[in-house]
Amino acid sequence: MPVEAQVLKGMRDFLPPRMILRQHVIDELRHVFELHGFEPLDTPAIEYAETLEGKFGDEADKLIYEFEDRGGRRVGLRYDLTVPLARVVGSHPELVKPFKRYQISPVWRGEKPAKGRYREFWQCDVDTVGSSSMLADAEVVTVGYESLRRIGFSKFRTKINNRKVLAAIAQYAGVSPEQAGLVYRAIDKLEKIGLEAVKAELVAANIEQRAVDRLMEILQTQGTPETVLSELASRLATYASGIEGVHELQEIVRYLEDSGVPREFYEIDFTMVRGLDYYTGPIFETTVEEPKIGSICGGGRYDGLVGMFTHRQVPATGISLGLERIIDVLESLREAGAPGVQTVTTVLVTVFDASTLRESLRLASELRFEGVNTEVFLGKDKLGSQLRYASRKGIPYAIIIGPDEIAQSTVVVKDLAKERQVTVERGDIAAFFHGAHTS
Amino acid sequence: MPVEAQVLKGMRDFLPPRMILRQHVIDELRHVFELHGFEPLDTPAIEYAETLEGKFGDEADKLIYEFEDRGGRRVGLRYDLTVPLARVVGSHPELVKPFKRYQISPVWRGEKPAKGRYREFWQCDVDTVGSSSMLADAEVVTVGYESLRRIGFSKFRTKINNRKVLAAIAQYAGVSPEQAGLVYRAIDKLEKIGLEAVKAELVAANIEQRAVDRLMEILQTQGTPETVLSELASRLATYASGIEGVHELQEIVRYLEDSGVPREFYEIDFTMVRGLDYYTGPIFETTVEEPKIGSICGGGRYDGLVGMFTHRQVPATGISLGLERIIDVLESLREAGAPGVQTVTTVLVTVFDASTLRESLRLASELRFEGVNTEVFLGKDKLGSQLRYASRKGIPYAIIIGPDEIAQSTVVVKDLAKERQVTVERGDIAAFFHGAHTS
Repeated sequence: MPVEAQVLKGMRDFLPPRMILRQHVIDELRHVFELHGFEPLDTPAIEYAETLEGKFGDEADKLIYEFEDRGGRRVGLRYDLTVPLARVVGSHPELVKPFKRYQISPVWRGEKPAKGRYREFWQCDVDTVGSSSMLADAEVVTVGYESLRRIGFSKFRTKINNRKVLAAIAQYAGVSPEQAGLVYRAIDKLEKIGLEAVKAELVAANIEQRAVDRLMEILQTQGTPETVLSELASRLATYASGIEGVHELQEIVRYLEDSGVPREFYEIDFTMVRGLDYYTGPIFETTVEEPKIGSICGGGRYDGLVGMFTHRQVPATGISLGLERIIDVLESLREAGAPGVQTVTTVLVTVFDASTLRESLRLASELRFEGVNTEVFLGKDKLGSQLRYASRKGIPYAIIIGPDEIAQSTVVVKDLAKERQVTVERGDIAAFFHGAHTS
Repeated sequence: MPVEAQVLKGMRDFLPPRMILRQHVIDELRHVFELHGFEPLDTPAIEYAETLEGKFGDEADKLIYEFEDRGGRRVGLRYDLTVPLARVVGSHPELVKPFKRYQISPVWRGEKPAKGRYREFWQCDVDTVGSSSMLADAEVVTVGYESLRRIGFSKFRTKINNRKVLAAIAQYAGVSPEQAGLVYRAIDKLEKIGLEAVKAELVAANIEQRAVDRLMEILQTQGTPETVLSELASRLATYASGIEGVHELQEIVRYLEDSGVPREFYEIDFTMVRGLDYYTGPIFETTVEEPKIGSICGGGRYDGLVGMFTHRQVPATGISLGLERIIDVLESLREAGAPGVQTVTTVLVTVFDASTLRESLRLASELRFEGVNTEVFLGKDKLGSQLRYASRKGIPYAIIIGPDEIAQSTVVVKDLAKERQVTVERGDIAAFFHGAHTS
């Protein structure tokens, strides 16, 4: 009785057509990241459990895949790529700072699987460690913008806020520090449940009516980033840390402008909060508006995290792009009719019979030498069945090289999609594919 | 007190200079694999424990990272990439056959860490599932050859043997089926410990002297693949399965010849055995001879493995290239003086002061638009310190754009390695880097 061939819930096999798309997206992201001088880093999937715990919040800790290894060590699978980065920086004081790195790798979380929520999924992270300059924050936002543009998205928007500003707003409104977390979580829902529902939630949580009113007043400020920020600056004038946060946001806006990020792609939004515990300054969240798929990229400054692994405080900021949501959107576009590549192969060289096999193999070697992805049919099937294999796989071209063609120093090239064929001189075949379709 | 920032024994962080090399090698392998029409596949790191167990042999089973997940399921981290492939084929009967896939991914084994032996390491696998043609076997050997050549190795050799032949040789020599495994393990050591030591080991294991002599006679056959195989064919004439194995090897040798693999890169070697339980036919093992680093690639035909996950027998063959050993060799060559890239960045644009920052940012955007990997210095350090940052990171060029340059519509480009500088018209800067150094 065979073993049941099943994959764990919340985990997925990526068959070739999906993997080709994933690799394409990953290659594009790498390209954008490296254009900005971010360098590749890789870390082990398994970390000491104590490295992972206590960084994300209590709820998140419960989702870490933890176990004892055969040596009795408590270990866990990485939950994100930021904590391993902080550990790396902690254990490599020799790294030249600022250290700009990217990492594109899977992470594991024991979440309840749902549509779009997986237990193994890939993150694409870009971080700068060792710089407190707002240039670093503006750059990761710019990289997020350029990445999504390059992949083909055109309607998305990055919300920018600042944890220091959030804290000062709560203080200004008269919310006690103990209640601040509760207030953040409520206002984070504003877009989803609306103003009145948030107000009701705050009142139900025993926030004074006066504080709720003051909060709502600020949260409803509208206008360009400059006007929204200068208005807030006058309100928060007596809150030093809040003013610092406002200035940080003003700097970021200026640098985004100078880096060529168009206005319609970002906004200041005091209702955007972000879940993770470790943020300390500017925070970012990008939502794709068409198609409506929600948050696709998020991040922020976390000046305290690296210090958990070392005796020095090391400032840091970064963003994380969610590969899975990007792919989900691209796949839904593809299902809606956008063209998609099904196979890496450009040409199938068919095999007439055992006596001509050698010529098929040689032709295939030549095409590969010229950089054309080429398969030779593996087997002794009739020609029709060989061509059906190519069609089913989505291979665009098939070559026929039988005794007649060999005698005449030609080959027949079939365009399988257009159902056309053409006879090509044996010596011209590489040039033919260079004109038509190469890898 | 900070958490100790440590990585688990046998696991490694790959800092940027090493990751740049790893990605380069992976990109080259992908290129060769896709030239042959192998398609990318990815599978989860975590599998049901029963998927992994009982496939590799008892000793190997003890090395699997197994644990219970939070849902009480017995799971494990993948031990190789072949078993997950077999599971995928078992659960996706719709896959067009032959299914040619590659996978480049980490695997985990709880081995005792040693030089060159890690608990997390990457495998690069190429397999064809659903073809019993020896063309498929010859192709994976060809892909191994082309991969190593492309990466830059020039002295290596692939040993080719066949499990059917090994079984027939043991039978021919008069070894009982129960003792066959023991005999294989002994002759596998021939190259390492020498002929006499192997003989002694066989005698000590109660193999009859006459059987040992007959074995040694065959194992010492020398000559071209053709003569060695035809001599063996006459000895094994009465062993049907052995003859089948010899014919398979003869076919493979013919196809390697027709695929342009030069003779000096492979040989038939009846003493090469391979450890894994699941091989059923031809087996391959490639050793790099200069520098002497041992086995770098291995594989073979495993017609029974997919059937463990499905009700049908599905033939399959493939090879696995060990990324870690390839990297170890390239790194030792680099330490010996071969040039190596330390960073992805081509240009650092320095920042004169706050008033010129905008011009630095704009210049950087332009260079990136032209495909030049460009950093802007993050911070307010003096120019000397900005240039030191570039030198320490190994960035080849720095650009100075201060008030004088802005007034004259020029920039100064410093070549940091050659310690030379040149003034370039502001409008010509993209062209300058296209001539000099682009990503």
